[in-house]
Amino acid sequence: MSNYDEKYLKRGASASKSEVHAAIKNTDKGIFPGAFCKIIEDHLGNDKEYCNIMHADGAGTKSSLAYIYFKETGDISVFRGIAQDSLIMNIDDVIAVGATENMLFSNTIGRNKHLISGDIIGEIIDGYEQVLSMLNDNGIGIYSCGGETADVGDLVKTVIVDSTLSARMKRSDVIDNDNIAPGDVIVGLASYGQATYEDKYNSGMGSNGLTSARHDTFTKLYVDKYPESYSAETDKEYVYCGKYKLTDDFGHGDLTVGQAVLSPTRTYAPVLKEIFDHIGRNEIHGIIHNSGGGQVKCRSFGKGVHYIKDSMMEIPPLFELIKDSSGTDYPEMYQVFNMGSRMEIIVPGDLAEEIIEIAGSFKIEAKVIGRVEKNPDSEIANKVTITAPDGQEIVY
Amino acid sequence: MSNYDEKYLKRGASASKSEVHAAIKNTDKGIFPGAFCKIIEDHLGNDKEYCNIMHADGAGTKSSLAYIYFKETGDISVFRGIAQDSLIMNIDDVIAVGATENMLFSNTIGRNKHLISGDIIGEIIDGYEQVLSMLNDNGIGIYSCGGETADVGDLVKTVIVDSTLSARMKRSDVIDNDNIAPGDVIVGLASYGQATYEDKYNSGMGSNGLTSARHDTFTKLYVDKYPESYSAETDKEYVYCGKYKLTDDFGHGDLTVGQAVLSPTRTYAPVLKEIFDHIGRNEIHGIIHNSGGGQVKCRSFGKGVHYIKDSMMEIPPLFELIKDSSGTDYPEMYQVFNMGSRMEIIVPGDLAEEIIEIAGSFKIEAKVIGRVEKNPDSEIANKVTITAPDGQEIVY
Repeated sequence: MSNYDEKYLKRGASASKSEVHAAIKNTDKGIFPGAFCKIIEDHLGNDKEYCNIMHADGAGTKSSLAYIYFKETGDISVFRGIAQDSLIMNIDDVIAVGATENMLFSNTIGRNKHLISGDIIGEIIDGYEQVLSMLNDNGIGIYSCGGETADVGDLVKTVIVDSTLSARMKRSDVIDNDNIAPGDVIVGLASYGQATYEDKYNSGMGSNGLTSARHDTFTKLYVDKYPESYSAETDKEYVYCGKYKLTDDFGHGDLTVGQAVLSPTRTYAPVLKEIFDHIGRNEIHGIIHNSGGGQVKCRSFGKGVHYIKDSMMEIPPLFELIKDSSGTDYPEMYQVFNMGSRMEIIVPGDLAEEIIEIAGSFKIEAKVIGRVEKNPDSEIANKVTITAPDGQEIVY
Repeated sequence: MSNYDEKYLKRGASASKSEVHAAIKNTDKGIFPGAFCKIIEDHLGNDKEYCNIMHADGAGTKSSLAYIYFKETGDISVFRGIAQDSLIMNIDDVIAVGATENMLFSNTIGRNKHLISGDIIGEIIDGYEQVLSMLNDNGIGIYSCGGETADVGDLVKTVIVDSTLSARMKRSDVIDNDNIAPGDVIVGLASYGQATYEDKYNSGMGSNGLTSARHDTFTKLYVDKYPESYSAETDKEYVYCGKYKLTDDFGHGDLTVGQAVLSPTRTYAPVLKEIFDHIGRNEIHGIIHNSGGGQVKCRSFGKGVHYIKDSMMEIPPLFELIKDSSGTDYPEMYQVFNMGSRMEIIVPGDLAEEIIEIAGSFKIEAKVIGRVEKNPDSEIANKVTITAPDGQEIVY
């Protein structure tokens, strides 16, 4: 076990979720077992040409950080970003299989009423409405069905913000990562900067790795001040052991370090829809949303391929800050964080330029970060090699 | 504010959720604003004859009780019941508008990995599969899409088990509680006993009111032993202030008191499907699932009606035990717990007998518990009068 895995475990989380995968090992993989999301028959419409997806995810422990940020600064609007995190973690998974319309959305909020007011819930709900409306404006057909807010202070220390998304789509539109093939190139889309549909600089943080990012970035000052913001069972040695205060200057995009780590998860939905409309879903061999698992996520998709990422996106300042604050090495950073690119599109080389141009039209940097080769070691298992900025080739 | 409301608030929960309702007041009510669940246009299929529902709910703090029961007895299978609670709280809401097929299901589990093992997650997932298979065997068309298990020990003290359900149905099949009319009778279906599709005695407990039921039933012994099972912000005076140990004999159905409070939420789906098939959805004026709000839940449905419940189901032993252990009076008990009937079918009087017979064929007791009259006080607001066993008429 790596140091990092060990630290993760000590914090009551895990990087690999191997235990969870063991618990669900017997459950059915659906009708496109190679796709990024589980896809099932059209139980909603009983039409053989269609299929269904239902997908759940949430903001994770980012809401705990939003809570202490709100307590420190009084800025309640930070909870709007948590709604965005929760929703985008779903939509960017589902759009990775090609769904852009006929989608329903519902949320589940669990709060400790002692600490989380109705005003905070109001901000979260407004945040959801705001992102949904931005998505609708960009041609994404997603509709809110409301949700459930439960007062569960005996279970939830502060607030947990989860979402679920249902979609119905044509089977012929499904992007199936089983099509990823040797010879393809990997186009990475930047997770940082400011897209045309964003109103400020985005640090590139998504909504995974937050247990680690929070404790590795922020200072011991918060240990005694906010015991409600971390697990009582975690040894205090591993709680808030970073260098920064929430209000320290981040040095980019006029953000504090707190705001940088809380940067709402960027959605790639508007860009991907444009790519689908221009290039066609069937030309795309695969799409990987680099959430949990970071740059190594791709290893779970494709068959007997070797992902060689030797021309990575420049690492944005936030991940350098987390790396430096925690003393984590590159091999571990790459398997937790997106490190600059949260969406990868895998296509034959001649399509790369058009994708890069479309991303650019949304002011999102994109580039060919690597290529797909045959895995010399296996016909089934996949392999990932990443070249770090210091030149080392990391093999996963 | 009543004593009960006050005690609820002190425990970081609320009986009325008025704050939450205020936060969502501006959100759209859907195309059948009088129905039990929010129903929207057929965004999944774009067919004017169809509509969609997406619904979220969970086991609430019942999972905290399962946790301490597991710690005390070593019986890990108790977590299967929590999966049933989480799923049935959804399906019994959705079936109340008439949906029995074309349903998808997804779950969201948040755990503190320090305390909740992969084996426990395995039990929860097996529990879901077991209930889904029982529902399928009874003609309910619901399909699992898997879900998300997140390690969020910094947010969740033990484990939170939520579910979301999507359904697509014909608009003409929708049971719209706006049809509830003076002259109708209220048929109550028992929440306790042992239905043909249950493998042991069910106490009648659903998955609401558990913060109250837990603390009012179980003894101070657990305060120091399991601080992870309640909110750190709740004054200890209000934590576990009942008379019973988890392992005390309940005196009914060979259960301990712990098992009685943990009795998995009964589903009425097989019975309602049979009723729909025999009587037709269009003959039914309304269906109320008495979850949060207990016997007063009906007050939110219908227009200018007075629900007179003067012939209530006998109160099952569990609710008498909670009442006695907590010193709560009838007016408060009825607005938190189902008190013996968790599903009400509101129909013209001549249909009551057939409903009672169908319920009986599943060994579920049913009876006419009351009637609907015009509310003399308002054309819009509704009123509920319940006759308690001691003869008092309680007006809500």
